[in-house]
Amino acid sequence: MSAEGGLRLYGYWRSSAAYRVRIALNLKGLPYETVPVHLVNNGGEQHAEAYRRLNPQELIPVLQDGGRIVRQSMAIVEYLDEAYEGHCKLLPTPARDRARVRALAQIVACDVHPLNNLRVLQYLEREFNVPPVERERWSRHWIVEGFRAFEELLAENPSTGQFCEGDDPSLADVCLIPQVYNARRWDVDLSPFPTIQRIDEHCRKLPAFADARPEAQPDAPPV
Amino acid sequence: MSAEGGLRLYGYWRSSAAYRVRIALNLKGLPYETVPVHLVNNGGEQHAEAYRRLNPQELIPVLQDGGRIVRQSMAIVEYLDEAYEGHCKLLPTPARDRARVRALAQIVACDVHPLNNLRVLQYLEREFNVPPVERERWSRHWIVEGFRAFEELLAENPSTGQFCEGDDPSLADVCLIPQVYNARRWDVDLSPFPTIQRIDEHCRKLPAFADARPEAQPDAPPV
Repeated sequence: MSAEGGLRLYGYWRSSAAYRVRIALNLKGLPYETVPVHLVNNGGEQHAEAYRRLNPQELIPVLQDGGRIVRQSMAIVEYLDEAYEGHCKLLPTPARDRARVRALAQIVACDVHPLNNLRVLQYLEREFNVPPVERERWSRHWIVEGFRAFEELLAENPSTGQFCEGDDPSLADVCLIPQVYNARRWDVDLSPFPTIQRIDEHCRKLPAFADARPEAQPDAPPV
Repeated sequence: MSAEGGLRLYGYWRSSAAYRVRIALNLKGLPYETVPVHLVNNGGEQHAEAYRRLNPQELIPVLQDGGRIVRQSMAIVEYLDEAYEGHCKLLPTPARDRARVRALAQIVACDVHPLNNLRVLQYLEREFNVPPVERERWSRHWIVEGFRAFEELLAENPSTGQFCEGDDPSLADVCLIPQVYNARRWDVDLSPFPTIQRIDEHCRKLPAFADARPEAQPDAPPV
């Protein structure tokens, strides 16, 4: 694929937001080039001038589609879904179902993940002297809060299927699976969330999800 | 309007997320009934059992559209846009422009507002003993970080018009204006953000935005 015409993902192997976009690209069968941006080395490569020109927020991921720059992981996933319509759809058609999928995705993207971001944990350490064990408790707290509601909304609704919405993967799964990966990283007890666990197990068996996992990325450190 | 067939918004006058939905409803010309949920009185009415049944996240806003429950402010706004197509559109048509609008909205909804939520400030106080002055600095920090990027993305792009995207209001303005309101509440210096200020001034003159402001709500305390 040429650099000009193809898709290029600026990301980081362990970033939950980049992981979402990788799943979406794989589900839609879109090949892409990975450009690693190391979030810690060199004072954080996302703060470098060249990267700032791509994204003044100094956050990853960024998607380059030919000459077009798309920012924010959720906006990127919806962009891919709209710009590459012929492929697997990541949002269902009825407005009601779209709203349910987006609301589930936003539990993760608006109410869990933003609180457990690297820059937020860095602020807690730097400005408030919050020790590591308390920062981990903070991270677990917001994951458990979010998953409690997410589980309830899955368990109560008959439209939950093999995936969050029916038997096709959607934006909700695209957000959920990276958050479950993070939950494991923070040793969150997942036993109160059986539906989340079932969907996570199902998804992780599929190549689109398996190939997107952090450890499978070119910039992941060797095991 | 009947309770069964109409639109009902569960919200709180000063909630930034409810404010977004009020603007969207007004822009689309959709009449709605307000159901106030007081976030502090009675230990927080969003934690009451009756409300929990509407939203297990115990957060506002929730939109009831006849028998349908829609959660998460951003999902609600997109739902309104898709379910009430005949009205003013809150997202443009081309995928490229939609992605830009969503990315701007998500700077606020995913990277600023979640950090300055009531429950987060309560956690900082309760668990980390962060004093009020430091909690205010925390709130200002994330607003300034977000606005710095938001301003740059507005200023650099020729598609910025009277509103964030061209000369029609969109999801980006729906998110921006409540965040500017919050910024004023926290005494953020807005002078580094001239384009944000210009769009905010333009929007606040319009009835859809003016009628949605916190002080105009039935549950706002008397001045």
